[in-house]
Amino acid sequence: MSNVIADISMSLDGFVAGPNPTLDDPLGEGGMQLHEWAFRLAAWRRPHGLDGGVDDIDSPLVEQALAATGAIVMGRRMFSGGDGPWEEDSNARGWWGDEPPFHKPVFVVTHHAREPLELGETTFIFVTDGIESAVAQARTAAGGKDVRVAGGAAVVQQCLAAGLLDEIELHVAPVLLGGGTRLFERAAPARLVVREAISVPLATHIRLRVER
Amino acid sequence: MSNVIADISMSLDGFVAGPNPTLDDPLGEGGMQLHEWAFRLAAWRRPHGLDGGVDDIDSPLVEQALAATGAIVMGRRMFSGGDGPWEEDSNARGWWGDEPPFHKPVFVVTHHAREPLELGETTFIFVTDGIESAVAQARTAAGGKDVRVAGGAAVVQQCLAAGLLDEIELHVAPVLLGGGTRLFERAAPARLVVREAISVPLATHIRLRVER
Repeated sequence: MSNVIADISMSLDGFVAGPNPTLDDPLGEGGMQLHEWAFRLAAWRRPHGLDGGVDDIDSPLVEQALAATGAIVMGRRMFSGGDGPWEEDSNARGWWGDEPPFHKPVFVVTHHAREPLELGETTFIFVTDGIESAVAQARTAAGGKDVRVAGGAAVVQQCLAAGLLDEIELHVAPVLLGGGTRLFERAAPARLVVREAISVPLATHIRLRVER
Repeated sequence: MSNVIADISMSLDGFVAGPNPTLDDPLGEGGMQLHEWAFRLAAWRRPHGLDGGVDDIDSPLVEQALAATGAIVMGRRMFSGGDGPWEEDSNARGWWGDEPPFHKPVFVVTHHAREPLELGETTFIFVTDGIESAVAQARTAAGGKDVRVAGGAAVVQQCLAAGLLDEIELHVAPVLLGGGTRLFERAAPARLVVREAISVPLATHIRLRVER
């Protein structure tokens, strides 16, 4: 049975992006620090077309996530790199360049209808009828594999509120950003269960089961 | 060398207490869930005068913290159970009953001067000249052992801002409270280092080193 898993990095103070994001710096001030744990890993760099990197105790976590995932759901800002008129441009190629690192179908939740966009081995499918539809389409495309909800915060919050998540894989980076976009904002009270945690100096990876 | 360690439980969404705290329920709605990981442990129940409980992989964490701690720092609300006129009452015995569970000197940061209060094996010392003084006095009282900053959020934030913390022991409970008192509110941007994490179904314990 495939699971729907939110997979996202967060600061100690709860932010998935720092203050003052721009198109050049969509993660905001200090936001890149949230992902340093990933950037250092060969297991993460390879599928992103990057050389080098190290193996560490959290490498299997990245490898397993890649192998188990059949489709991805993300928000429009994660696709485009930010708000702005480019979102309305049906020829915009998004923020991820000509060879996006996903190599599987990516369902983008947006209000702006457009044809699917194929870039390298990644196809972006634009879903305008809401998060439930996006997750349902991703589930079908995943063919029995997991669906990963990659962010941003708004899409994760919508999935949580709609009861669509089976698990959350939270990568807590040991940084304080002081401001930015919070992952959990006025969440409905809920109990989850910690399944596993692995720590490296740059992150604590916490796998949580959502009780539905 | 003794360390100054903030030791506090927090929800996934960053709260140390839920919404609408009262004198009867100072942790607010849902706030008791943050401490269930502790309530279940024999290692925690024994020093609190309670029978029963279990041993688990996080028992040594509680035992080591108790053994290593020579003095405690807390805020006035953690002493009194909340805001209100009782804070001004020099005869108030605080929220912890006649046999408080601390069994060591507790330095209470407050604006209201009063004589030390001895209850069972615990002495509360009231410090009116600020957090740095409270931590300095606690350090002296600890006689080479660690100083633990037990909360609430305001006192931890003051310690962090003043550069007084060596470590943070964060107990992340897998619950969403949706509101309440945030542990980190407008923190100054900072980098820490994850030293260790241990997970049980009711918490992920993360030990962090503050780089100064």
